[in-house]
Order: sequence, then C-alpha cells, then structure tokens
Amino acid sequence: MAERPPDDDPRILWTEDVLRYRDTDANGHVNNAVFAGFCESGRVQFFAAHLTPVLPPGSVLVIARFVIDYRAELHFPGRVRTGTWLGRLGRSSLGFRNRIVGDGRLVGEAEATCVLIDAATRRPRPVDGAARETAERLLLPGAE
Amino acid sequence: MAERPPDDDPRILWTEDVLRYRDTDANGHVNNAVFAGFCESGRVQFFAAHLTPVLPPGSVLVIARFVIDYRAELHFPGRVRTGTWLGRLGRSSLGFRNRIVGDGRLVGEAEATCVLIDAATRRPRPVDGAARETAERLLLPGAE
Amino acid sequence: MAERPPDDDPRILWTEDVLRYRDTDANGHVNNAVFAGFCESGRVQFFAAHLTPVLPPGSVLVIARFVIDYRAELHFPGRVRTGTWLGRLGRSSLGFRNRIVGDGRLVGEAEATCVLIDAATRRPRPVDGAARETAERLLLPGAE
Amino acid sequence: MAERPPDDDPRILWTEDVLRYRDTDANGHVNNAVFAGFCESGRVQFFAAHLTPVLPPGSVLVIARFVIDYRAELHFPGRVRTGTWLGRLGRSSLGFRNRIVGDGRLVGEAEATCVLIDAATRRPRPVDGAARETAERLLLPGAE
Repeated sequence: MAERPPDDDPRILWTEDVLRYRDTDANGHVNNAVFAGFCESGRVQFFAAHLTPVLPPGSVLVIARFVIDYRAELHFPGRVRTGTWLGRLGRSSLGFRNRIVGDGRLVGEAEATCVLIDAATRRPRPVDGAARETAERLLLPGAE
Repeated sequence: MAERPPDDDPRILWTEDVLRYRDTDANGHVNNAVFAGFCESGRVQFFAAHLTPVLPPGSVLVIARFVIDYRAELHFPGRVRTGTWLGRLGRSSLGFRNRIVGDGRLVGEAEATCVLIDAATRRPRPVDGAARETAERLLLPGAE
Repeated sequence: MAERPPDDDPRILWTEDVLRYRDTDANGHVNNAVFAGFCESGRVQFFAAHLTPVLPPGSVLVIARFVIDYRAELHFPGRVRTGTWLGRLGRSSLGFRNRIVGDGRLVGEAEATCVLIDAATRRPRPVDGAARETAERLLLPGAE
Repeated sequence: MAERPPDDDPRILWTEDVLRYRDTDANGHVNNAVFAGFCESGRVQFFAAHLTPVLPPGSVLVIARFVIDYRAELHFPGRVRTGTWLGRLGRSSLGFRNRIVGDGRLVGEAEATCVLIDAATRRPRPVDGAARETAERLLLPGAE
C-alpha cells in the first residue's frame, strides 16, 4: 500500500482491541477475518467522532470495497492498536485507511472504500457542503 | 436435562446450519460459543413463526438465562440441525429448548429462559391473551 | 446464582475486553453469545496461569456445561472486565465462575463446568495430585 | 473485478452457507466481515479437495491479501452459495477468487492472494512440481 503517515498525526484515530480466545481458528492464530473487525471498529468510531454530525440529512455511508494486506500473525492473548484515517476523498466516496499494530509491529494494513448514498434511493450522492469541508480537513496528505 | 420429545413432533422447529472454518478455534474444533448461535438462530425463527404476531403490543422478549450442555465435539466441515421448542411456560417467562444434532448424533442441548417485558418500562409483564393461548398450544409436554 | 466473592479477592483473575462493532446484532446491542466469549477468554487465561502447569500428563480440561445469567445490556463502544475464579471442585470436574462488569455495573454472571479427561480415552479422570492441591488453594469459599 | 467465469464451470467449487442471526450487526443486515468467512470456508475446502495433497512437503499456504467488493446487502434468515476458483497463478502465489450469491443475485466478489511458504523458514517458495501441474489444470482462464 501507500506511504505511511506518522503514528502521531492527529488526524489518525487510534482504537484499541483485546484479542479473545474466540478470535483464534484451527490454525492456532487469530483468524484473518478478525482483522477486518478491528478496522471496522476504528471506522465506526471515526465516523461517529468526525463525520456523522456533518453528513447531509438523509444520507448514509456504506462500504463498497475492503482491501487488507496481512503483514504478520497474531496470537492469543494480546492486544492490538488500530489507526484509522481518511486517505482518499472522491466525489461520492471516501477511502478509510487502517494500520493494525500488535506486539510493537505492523500486522496489517487496510483500506475501506465507503460511498455516500441517499438513504431513500440508495444511489450515490456527492460528499458536499459541511461533509466535504470536514473531509478535506481530515484528509491525510501523502497517504495515497 | 429433561426427557426428550421425539424429533418429529410438529411443535419442534428444525433449522439447519453449515459449519464454517471461522467457527473453529485453536483447539481445532468448533468453538463452544458457536453452539449458542445455532440455538439463537432457531429461537429467532421460532419467535418470528409463532410468537411475534401474537405478542401484546409494546412488549418484547429478552433473554435472561442460557444453559447449554455439550455432548460432543464438532469439526469443520459439516452441518448441524437444531430443534427448537417451547419447553416451559411461566407467568412472564418462556423456556425455549434446543437440541443440536451433527453427524447423526446429539452434540448439544440447551435452554434459553426468555422474559416478556414492557418495551418502555423494561419490566416483566404477564404472557397473557393471544400470546398465552399460542404458547399453551406450542408447549411440548413431557419436555420438563 | 450464588453469593458473590469480593472483587478484590486475589483468587479472582480479572481480564479486560474491548467491545467491537462486530459484537452487535440486529437488536442494536452486544449479542448474547459474545458474553460467553469474555468468560472463555478469562477461563483460558486462568487455566494457563494456574492449572495447565499442574495437570496430570495426558489429561485435558473440556467444557461440559455453560450457564449464563444476563443482567444488563451492553452497547458499542465500551469495555468490560471479567472476573474468573474457581467456585466448585468435584472429583473430576471444576466449576469456573465468571462475573462480567461493564459501565460500572454487573452485566452477566456465568459458570462453566469443565471436566478433566484422559486425552487418549476421552474419559473423565480424577483431579488429583498437584492439580487438586492447586485447585483447593484457588477455590473461592462462599461462592457456592 | 474481472470477467466472470460461468457458474457451471467444473473448476469452480461451490459451497453453501446458512445465515445466522449472529451474523447481523446493529445496522440490521449481515455484517461485512461475515462475507469474508464465506470466502474462507470455500477456500479451505478448495485447498483440501485439490491442493493439500500435492503441496511440496514442509510447505504451507498463507493468506497475504484479501480484497472484497460488496454488491448487495444480506439479511437474516437466508442462505448463500459461494463459488471458489483459482484465478491467478504466480511463481509463489495463488489468487483465489470468490463469488457470493444470495437470493439469486451476486452479493459479493473477492480475491484472496495466498503465498506458498516454507513452514520452517516462513519464506516464499515456488509453486512447482505436482502443485504447479495441478494449479495449471485448475486455473480458470478469462478470470483475470
């Protein structure tokens, strides 16, 4: 993936997760789908903190694509920290990036492409007005 | 647990589940919490089929207790069938029984105690009227 | 359930979990099966810390029964703390208790009955020798 | 994604899944990470059926990247069918494609990039010998 912004950039929202025994699978390590859940928890909290208040009325963000690169295995017990930031801003779409760190090393990197749709028609609509202003302010340059 | 009603009793709702690789844990078998999910899927479909239409307006069923006895291990890949029936009827509570069958043998038995509450006050309220009539008709005698 | 030992009893192992968006279900709250996962994570860490080193060679603990009482709902985001202790000691079985605390209040109480079996024959065998000595020392009186 | 092979191509392995209530999240639909689980179950069964028997001794396939495009929502209750095929063959990597179908329409498309590694050194190693012959025979042309 792309060049990585520094961990302490204030536009990155960091969330923490605790690994669960239930996260493991028959391979003995944390199942790969669990990583997607860390990204989702980060994204939902990023939405709530920054975007939900400024979304155009009657619009909603839906996930259209998710890409994840696995960098290392995780084992129970343990903790991870997940950084979430806005890495890409299109006309109707937003690209949320994640970086998952466990045991002091990068274990995964991801991007979720979310599309702003009209809640009634379910068709894409532009990210404009206050939502765009906010998104531009949150956009993390150099992350593409 | 209690005496078991025959599999073909029409008051038992049978649902099917397909085991997933994600259901396994580091022990190599299907994780024990996954069994609870089979029971829940059965219960939710039993509610929808029989009880939701006759519940008193403004009331809702919530789970208060869940008890499960593990009888055998499950391994991926495979399928299970889960039988769900009403095994107990109290003033405000209903006891939903489950029997999980995999590979032709019993792998688990469970009971969920659900309480009918007023959606606004969140306090228990009697199962009465059409809900009680329906529940009495569904109740599987000899299951206690 | 039974009388509750004080939170600060040193025989209680406390583990922490972070709620995930994935833990929610269509009811809008944390799904009831997720609570079982908190108990399991606590139990697995209790085993590793106290029991695994003293189990008789060739023996293994398996879960036979799980009982949980739901006391309150949980909502994302948030954290819980789970206390795990040995509340019951039988000839071949151990009863592990859990108490789950979220938002400063009790949200669930559980007990898992685990049986010590011979790994080869899969039949119950007595908890004896160093395992019994350790279990007796860990047993939390007044919890039954 | 790429041009789609016909559903009845014999090189596609079809697996079935039953939706569970636990698959839903607070949005009321099946959580997006659950789709990844369908792909994984398909992939694991594809491995077992075709590749595990011919992998070079001491080698193992690990997932390096997962990409999924969400095409439609899924709701409980219901079933899905997942097609899994080999869509790409590199020196050390294999690209497994998935197509998830629910309610008669495409709900998701995915690709998992798996890398053959030496189990001891954890370094990539070529897909050669019987594994390559098998992979070439399974490779679904036109899928890239």
